[in-house]
Amino acid sequence: MPRIVVLRLGHRPSRDKRITTHVCLVARAFGAEGVYISGVRDASIHSTLEKVTATWGGDFWVEFVSSPMKVIDKWKESGGVVAHLTMYGIQIKQARDLIPSDRDLLVVVGGEKVPSEYYEKADFNVAVGNQPHSEVAALAIFLDRATGGAWEGMRFKSARLRIVPSERGKNVEQCPSNKKAFSDH
Amino acid sequence: MPRIVVLRLGHRPSRDKRITTHVCLVARAFGAEGVYISGVRDASIHSTLEKVTATWGGDFWVEFVSSPMKVIDKWKESGGVVAHLTMYGIQIKQARDLIPSDRDLLVVVGGEKVPSEYYEKADFNVAVGNQPHSEVAALAIFLDRATGGAWEGMRFKSARLRIVPSERGKNVEQCPSNKKAFSDH
Repeated sequence: MPRIVVLRLGHRPSRDKRITTHVCLVARAFGAEGVYISGVRDASIHSTLEKVTATWGGDFWVEFVSSPMKVIDKWKESGGVVAHLTMYGIQIKQARDLIPSDRDLLVVVGGEKVPSEYYEKADFNVAVGNQPHSEVAALAIFLDRATGGAWEGMRFKSARLRIVPSERGKNVEQCPSNKKAFSDH
Repeated sequence: MPRIVVLRLGHRPSRDKRITTHVCLVARAFGAEGVYISGVRDASIHSTLEKVTATWGGDFWVEFVSSPMKVIDKWKESGGVVAHLTMYGIQIKQARDLIPSDRDLLVVVGGEKVPSEYYEKADFNVAVGNQPHSEVAALAIFLDRATGGAWEGMRFKSARLRIVPSERGKNVEQCPSNKKAFSDH
């Protein structure tokens, strides 16, 4: 299966901590393998995601980068496709038919003001609706469509906890104490 | 068409300002008519959504409530259905077949810790994946499924700006200066 990675632009710890954390959690839950973050380094994002992965499984990674444009250039050089999420782009229905599904996909998620060079450099500028809403929601819907809803029923390997869906309340299975993690991922 | 309204629980201005704002923006963009917010009153949420609605159209409303449980009781008394989004609930695929599409729908979106009475009171506890991620993303995916993707191509009446989807850059149409808003909603 082709890789999916997210590039989150312009993180500001004072303002964006929770939004960027949600971007990372959504990336993980909806099938991306990791997130590059540009902007000010923020150890708390790392530690939150590490805790989540240790508990709920998977190999998700987060990496701060100083030059997001270099990440994009490298991605394209190695044959990958770059989709930039923006409310000004083409509609996702149309984008779905255009984005090749057999190539690695880098999903660029902006902040407040994204420089025009990102619009130029991206292979596709994609709008999840042309209304202002949320990069967190846009990423979830985009990954849902890009993967054909593969996140539903996805399992994460080496989980220590997992949820048994239930009509009322919380039903959480814990990995047996003589094992380090669920083995059946 | 049945109404869709969101109830956001436990807003804390110091911590949740941006997340609750994103919840409201997603509610608007994905077809809800308004959001009840419980927790500490926060005028900045109101003013942000008022500005968005004045510019981008529609009749979206935000209302702070002191007793969210009363909102739920009243909703059920008047024949509406209540769906509570939680990672512990039944999977959305299953929920879709169970939630009646011809009744008004109240979507309850929690914060960190939702008291068990909400799990009891809701008609459906629905998980958008059983992994930890984001109430913003969960709401977007839930509304996408609940409305059959009706947000795609949705128009908002009385908009002063609207976006013309484009492959590169930003193409925004402004309402003609001799009119108050686009008339063709």
